[in-house]
Amino acid sequence: MKTINIFGSTGSIGKNALDVIRKNKKDFKVLGLCAHTNIDALYAQIKEFSPSYVCVVNEESAEKIKNLSKKIKLFKGQIGLYEFASINCDISLMAISGISALRPLMINIEHAKKIALANKESIVTAGNFVLNKAKQFKTKILPVDSEINALYQLFTPQSNFSKVYLTASGGALFDYKPKDLNKVCVKTVLSHPTWRMGKRITIDSATLVNKGFEVVESHYFFNLPYENIDIVIHRESNVHAFVEFKDKTLFACMYPPDMRIPISFALSYPKRIDALQTPNFRGRFSLSFEPLHAKQFPLLDIILKGAKRGGNSLAVLNGCDEVAIEYFLSNKIKFTDIYRAMNYIFSHYKQARLKALDDVFYWDNWAKEKTKEYLRAL
Amino acid sequence: MKTINIFGSTGSIGKNALDVIRKNKKDFKVLGLCAHTNIDALYAQIKEFSPSYVCVVNEESAEKIKNLSKKIKLFKGQIGLYEFASINCDISLMAISGISALRPLMINIEHAKKIALANKESIVTAGNFVLNKAKQFKTKILPVDSEINALYQLFTPQSNFSKVYLTASGGALFDYKPKDLNKVCVKTVLSHPTWRMGKRITIDSATLVNKGFEVVESHYFFNLPYENIDIVIHRESNVHAFVEFKDKTLFACMYPPDMRIPISFALSYPKRIDALQTPNFRGRFSLSFEPLHAKQFPLLDIILKGAKRGGNSLAVLNGCDEVAIEYFLSNKIKFTDIYRAMNYIFSHYKQARLKALDDVFYWDNWAKEKTKEYLRAL
Repeated sequence: MKTINIFGSTGSIGKNALDVIRKNKKDFKVLGLCAHTNIDALYAQIKEFSPSYVCVVNEESAEKIKNLSKKIKLFKGQIGLYEFASINCDISLMAISGISALRPLMINIEHAKKIALANKESIVTAGNFVLNKAKQFKTKILPVDSEINALYQLFTPQSNFSKVYLTASGGALFDYKPKDLNKVCVKTVLSHPTWRMGKRITIDSATLVNKGFEVVESHYFFNLPYENIDIVIHRESNVHAFVEFKDKTLFACMYPPDMRIPISFALSYPKRIDALQTPNFRGRFSLSFEPLHAKQFPLLDIILKGAKRGGNSLAVLNGCDEVAIEYFLSNKIKFTDIYRAMNYIFSHYKQARLKALDDVFYWDNWAKEKTKEYLRAL
Repeated sequence: MKTINIFGSTGSIGKNALDVIRKNKKDFKVLGLCAHTNIDALYAQIKEFSPSYVCVVNEESAEKIKNLSKKIKLFKGQIGLYEFASINCDISLMAISGISALRPLMINIEHAKKIALANKESIVTAGNFVLNKAKQFKTKILPVDSEINALYQLFTPQSNFSKVYLTASGGALFDYKPKDLNKVCVKTVLSHPTWRMGKRITIDSATLVNKGFEVVESHYFFNLPYENIDIVIHRESNVHAFVEFKDKTLFACMYPPDMRIPISFALSYPKRIDALQTPNFRGRFSLSFEPLHAKQFPLLDIILKGAKRGGNSLAVLNGCDEVAIEYFLSNKIKFTDIYRAMNYIFSHYKQARLKALDDVFYWDNWAKEKTKEYLRAL
């Protein structure tokens, strides 16, 4: 029986994780639940899973919390989040979205034995800081992101792969011509063909920023040079990654596009828990693959260029992306303005090294302010 | 630089192996070549690879051998084959077809450090004898058969798979209706859709006896209960096998249907040699899968039933199959007579245990005589 703290329990990953736990009550005990604003969903989760600790990050929402059992310790606001991150536990699931996950993650590395990391922005913007601290505290970090999770599964100590391939469904807009992107509305961009996920990542999937971030994750998690990480279009999202040996033989990792599978892998690792899915090969099915040309996806191209530049580049690009998506989701800008903002920022920031974690936040903040300024002026 | 002896150098596997060696001369030195009848091809190979030992198994063909360099030691006939099998070497490739490989293989286990085993009949009829002797002499046996080779690649010491799937192209006659099988000629059965292989295995692919044999190989090589080995139709022959974990996640092993790839894996293991194939994912491609229902393939069904019965069953079935195929190839019987012979033998043999290797040969011989008798009377 392992104790689990869930950061972001009312989001898409959090709910999927609680479903995995619900079906494996012998193996896991929810110790703490942390949500941002969704108090109703949080109440239901508290009732079902009886955690000892609860955290509500949004101050306004925290005020709404009432009638909690006296057995539950409540944490509120940003400071509360840091305290919640300091609770010792066997496993944490870090499923807070965006760069907001970075500080609690860095704290949590000192207190969790294993972290199932569903947040990719922390690795994208501060990969070295996160992974070095994890090494220092001997905290195992397991990627939940399906592609990186698949690579984690395929990598074995004795493996000597020469290359890896991440698959990409192509997102909601893969079949759109560039000239038609101008007109797409929020609902269209949020209609991912294969995965049900949070809003930010679904939009990042449509622009392929998300795939760029996964390339960066693969780079950090597996110490791979960027030139050894490729992307392959695979519309069905059944194969999540390939590893390629020197003789060009490929190993593929396959499971249906259901986040509960990589979540359950990360939570139960090094064991595996019972299947949530139906048996394989019950019917006829096919898988298709085609090469992806990064140049055809301008934001993927920018992310990959930023990744190779290193330093503050990805903190800047992620900050810009977060703001632009927020604006798009509130219907303040058009979808293609996300592209304009990213292009603008990418050609208007000063490259710099990241000497300390605070530099990440500095550049994140710089990019966010600069992006807001740019978008307001549109 | 490893020394290699090739048993069956002028056959399909032998030629492919020599092509691998031709492209990796730094790694391998051909020590001995052994062929059955094809003297012309053997001469060309001797000229190119300058072996120290040559063996010609067919007595008549052996008489044709002339003008060999004095540096080459020549072995002739069945006794010569056993002497050839007693030559010490780093690697043997056992690519003699049918049960004829069994005795030289058993001898060779004492003299080769590693055996790349392309012959499946030896495992099918005498798996325990072969693998126990290999264990005793610490001789590594690597399966060359693409599906079993793929499983070998996917199996790692720490892996705890719950199930494996072998893929099947379905062979030359997959799209035929049972009533039309009566009319198929040798040429049709030998037109395998994806693989270029020897005659015996190509016909066994059409009847799916070959796939049944691979199930048996998987059972012996990986200690798997029969109920954990399944077959999946995959017409393209790019994925060769899957392993399935408890949580139903699948790992697949993929490479084009080119026997040089599993051969090069087996020869170079535990290293890998440079790719013979072009890079992956250069163009659009798709892979299709569908369940296979063993009941629809009567000979596969018989082989699997025989496998579960154990004892002498597979030696009997293999003996029958060898004779029936020989008769079909010489146009003495119709294709469907292979089915009739196998059915007849399967319901007319006495189940018995195999106490010693000689029992395998006894039952092989019994089945062959009985099959001839049956086929002659048709």
